[in-house]
Parts: sequence; C-alpha cells; structure tokens
Amino acid sequence: MSDIFLGADLGGSHIAVAAVNRQGDIVDKVEDPLTRAEDQDEIIRRIIHCFQKMRRKRQLRGKLNPQVGIGVNGVTDMERGIVVFSPNLKGQWRNVPLKKNLEAALRIPVAVANDVRAFTLAESRFGAGRGATNMVGIAIGTGIGGGLIIDGKLHTGLDTRGAELGHVIIDYNGPRCGCGSYGCVEAMAAAPAITGMAIGRIRQSAGSTLMYEFAEGDLNRVSPEVVARAAAAGDLAALEIMNKVGMYIGVAIASLLAALCPERVVIGGGVARAGEVLFDPIRRTLKKWVHTAPLRKIDVVPAELGTDAGVIGAAVWAMDHAER
Amino acid sequence: MSDIFLGADLGGSHIAVAAVNRQGDIVDKVEDPLTRAEDQDEIIRRIIHCFQKMRRKRQLRGKLNPQVGIGVNGVTDMERGIVVFSPNLKGQWRNVPLKKNLEAALRIPVAVANDVRAFTLAESRFGAGRGATNMVGIAIGTGIGGGLIIDGKLHTGLDTRGAELGHVIIDYNGPRCGCGSYGCVEAMAAAPAITGMAIGRIRQSAGSTLMYEFAEGDLNRVSPEVVARAAAAGDLAALEIMNKVGMYIGVAIASLLAALCPERVVIGGGVARAGEVLFDPIRRTLKKWVHTAPLRKIDVVPAELGTDAGVIGAAVWAMDHAER
Repeated sequence: MSDIFLGADLGGSHIAVAAVNRQGDIVDKVEDPLTRAEDQDEIIRRIIHCFQKMRRKRQLRGKLNPQVGIGVNGVTDMERGIVVFSPNLKGQWRNVPLKKNLEAALRIPVAVANDVRAFTLAESRFGAGRGATNMVGIAIGTGIGGGLIIDGKLHTGLDTRGAELGHVIIDYNGPRCGCGSYGCVEAMAAAPAITGMAIGRIRQSAGSTLMYEFAEGDLNRVSPEVVARAAAAGDLAALEIMNKVGMYIGVAIASLLAALCPERVVIGGGVARAGEVLFDPIRRTLKKWVHTAPLRKIDVVPAELGTDAGVIGAAVWAMDHAER
Repeated sequence: MSDIFLGADLGGSHIAVAAVNRQGDIVDKVEDPLTRAEDQDEIIRRIIHCFQKMRRKRQLRGKLNPQVGIGVNGVTDMERGIVVFSPNLKGQWRNVPLKKNLEAALRIPVAVANDVRAFTLAESRFGAGRGATNMVGIAIGTGIGGGLIIDGKLHTGLDTRGAELGHVIIDYNGPRCGCGSYGCVEAMAAAPAITGMAIGRIRQSAGSTLMYEFAEGDLNRVSPEVVARAAAAGDLAALEIMNKVGMYIGVAIASLLAALCPERVVIGGGVARAGEVLFDPIRRTLKKWVHTAPLRKIDVVPAELGTDAGVIGAAVWAMDHAER
C-alpha cells in the first residue's frame, strides 16, 4: 500500500486532479478548465488525460497508489460508478458508466463519488469535521448538496441515493424544486433563488440598493456574492435577503438535528463564502427552532478546505476503497 | 449467556414486563395498570415489583439472563439511564436516574431506552423492519416519536438525543410545537391536532358528520380513532382530515427519505391503527414529494408487533447490552 492517492474533481467548468498524502495534504495538482469540452466523451478524455499526466509526474518519484477516486457533480451511483444524471456538466450525462470507462483507459481501479459526498469525506477526515463521529456536510451553490458521516462512516443509503440534503422540505406549500418536489430548501436558498430575490429587490428599489452598485448596474451580474458583499456593507435589502436565506437553511438543519443529532455541521460551497452574514441568521434560526437536540454542544461551522475539498475527498474515497 | 431476557415498557397509564426469547417471542408477561400510582417513587416501586415478580416466576425454570431493559415514554439519556423529562408520566420526571434506582433495588444491570427507540429496535429485529439495513421507525400517538436503524444499528446521536422524528419541520410558518419550535410534524399530525381538527369540523357541520355520531354526540369523546372510523365509513369531513394528516406525515417522511434513503419505513402507534385511510394519503404524498430517492424500492409499512413492540424492544436493548 502506497502513501499517495490521486483524487479528481469534475465540476461544471473544470477538472482538477490532485496527489494527496495520507495526512490529507495536496502534494501536487493539475487542472483543466474544460472551456472547449463539448460533450461527455471529450470530458472523459480530458479526465483520463489529467490522471495520466499526474501519474507520469508522480510515478517518477514512486509511492503512488493505483486506486484513484473521482468526485462528480450530479446524481451518482457510487456503488457501480455510474453518473445517473448531471445537469451541470456539458453533454447528456445520463447513466454514464464512468468507472468502467476510466478503468478501461487507465487500467487501475477507480472509485466514483458524488462531489458533495467527496467534500463531506474531506471535511470529516481533514477539515472542519475532524473528530466528529456524526457530521452533516452541506454545500450551497447552484444547488444544495449534502453528505452524512454517521458513526464515522459516509452514509449513502439505498442505491447510494441518500444525503440529498438540498431536498429536505422546509415548507410543504413552498415553490416547486428542480427535483419535481415542493418547498425543498434547494428551491428556496440556493444561488438561483438568492439571485432571483436580489433582482426583485433591485427592481423595487429603483437602484437605491448597494447590490445594484456592486453589480455595476447590470442585472446579469447580480449573484449571491454581490448580495453577500452588499449585506456585509450594511445594505438593508441585501441583509434581509441573507437573513431569509439563513433562516431557510437553518430550518433544514433544524430538521436534520432533530433526526440525527450530530455533533458537527459543516457548511461549504460558493454561497457559504458569504461568512457571518449567512452564518449569523443560520445560528439565530437554530436557537429558535432546535429544542430536542443539545444545541450548545453542536458546532455549526464553515468548511475549512475551500475548493480543494473535492479533490481531497475523492482521494479519501480512493483510500477507503484501497483498504476494503 | 442465557436465552430469556426481561423487557419492560413504562407508559403514561401502565407498566408491562415481559420475558422474551432470542427469537423475539414473548414467553411470559405481567402488567400493572398504574391507576393509583401518583408519583415517580411509587411508579419506580411498581416497576421493581413487576420485574421481581417476573424474575421469581421465570427463575423457577432457569435460563434467565440477568441483563434487563426498560423503555420509557419521554426524553431519556440512554447512555446514562436517566429520564431527562417525561410529561406523560405521573409525578415530576426530571433527571430521574432510573438505571441507578433500578440497579440498586434489583442488583442486576439495567439498560434504559426511550420507548419509541425500543419500538424501532423491536420492529427492526422481529417485526416489519426485518432484514432492512437502514430503517426509519415512527410512532404516532399523543406525540410523534421516532427511531433510526442505520447500518443495522440503532442510531442515537449526541447524548442519545437524536431520532426525534416528530420534530422534523414541515412548514417553517407552522404552529408552535410543544417542544418550543414551529411547524414540527408532531404539532400538526399527532392525536391532539387530529382531535382539534375533528372538533372544529363537527362544530362547523352542525352535527352532520359521522364523526359526531361515532363520538356519541359528545365532543369529549372525539379522538383519532373516531376520525379514522368515520373516514373508513366514507365520511367526507373525516376523510379530509385523514388526508391532511397523511400529507403532513408524508412530507416529514419525504425529508427523511432525501436525507437517509432507508429501504424501509415502519409506522406504528395508536393513530397508525387507522390503516389505509392514513397510509393511502401518506403514499400519495410520497409520490408527489420524493424524487431523489428510489421510491419504488422503499417500503412504507405498518408496524407488526402492536402494543408488544415496547416490551420486546426493551428486551432487545437488554440483549444488545449483554453482548457488548
């Protein structure tokens, strides 16, 4: 058993492959921006290329474990290594046998994971979740993804389809979600919902909110980042939006605390970079809504590994498979 | 290690102690109706009396395991064997060291569990949850209790305060719950909420609903059982109430399926005895609200062990402790 594992992260706009040691440190990394990749065949070729490039670089120094891992944005069958559906990747990602394809090309064992399950594994082993026996991982971006560590292990559930924490329902009367359900926290608190609320407020305010200024007067530039910056600068409309978003996320977490009572909740993803303007209303919501779990002993904290959590988590997934 | 374990069930109005074999069969049972017990000291004396009576009966035949279990209605610290709070038991049940008290009197090891965690253990090992690696247990009565089997084991969480599935939130704008939160499924779908809806409908209907007839014209006799009977007989107002209750419970289950993706959901408790008039709207709700979990592979079924689930589960809890 060698000491260095390769982990890949496949997102909507990039591929990254990193060499990760058993302490969770990235010792080397290659990236490919995927700007000109147009379909899944081309994307799979690029993944193979990145893996091979990294293997050549690392093998010169020896100690490379043959087991590799990859985290993929989308619904994945982690047991069979199939990408069931991924709306954010270019091409038609429906039931793509990624494990089989990569193994045929690389001639080494490949472990496939959903990207937020990989994020959760990384944060649990080497990030903000260290030492927690039970941990909830949440990544807030274009969608809301999740991961669960229960009794020290990644909980995946039937057909590895569990931990879809963006689809915890916070209001049965709520708006329709992309999944087909109603009132899921993802439909109400992910990036599109935040941007939608911001554009609505800018239109109402006749340009009097900082959000409009930070978007340079261009509604196409409104984003969660613009809202967070305006909120941090004290803009009332932006603060109201972040309070609402934090409340929605807090209510979903409150349900998860009632059910699972973990000792740690780790929140990452682009939207979570907003920092205190998001975490403050989340914590206030938990005080109002959590009464059965011992809230004072439960830490709700930002992720620590940043955008590297994906590749580190994929490498951890590879480590766990190598040790099976 | 012997073959017969004693399990006790302590509810608001009764104590039962059963001798249970390793196949989950009750081979003997004693009960005490608790009608004249007024405080926890008296109730603890009665529990001790029931255990001792059963031990004397069984010890004549040998093969009695010294480890006993007890399931208690209320918030329990299952690690330390303390009843943290139990509003349904007579007396002031706050931080009562039940394990210590019983062990001092019985001079044998005692394992304490929350009653719905015991129900879940029993259904998982010997009832409707047999064979499921991941199972959600729900008991609907005066409150809504829960239990989780994850990876074959009872999941209790931090300070054993998890699995409070009645406090999964289905509507952040919902009514205040007894726990202090808002929009918990317990506040909207347990017996008091059902009875409240029924009384409201009876008042509106000027006596024209079957519910009024089944309650013998006495609003004090309105109960979930009356509503279920009227619904089964085709009464429209009662059916509407049961549809609403099933929808509320279904939304809570939908959130649990998104998060945990178990292969089995077992529903018991007095209200669940309503049968199809409750299970039908629950299943319809799941079809509408569940889109990430593979619903066709997930069984949502009634509990099988009836009121015996409590004593059997307490005995299972004793078995699990004897084998530690």
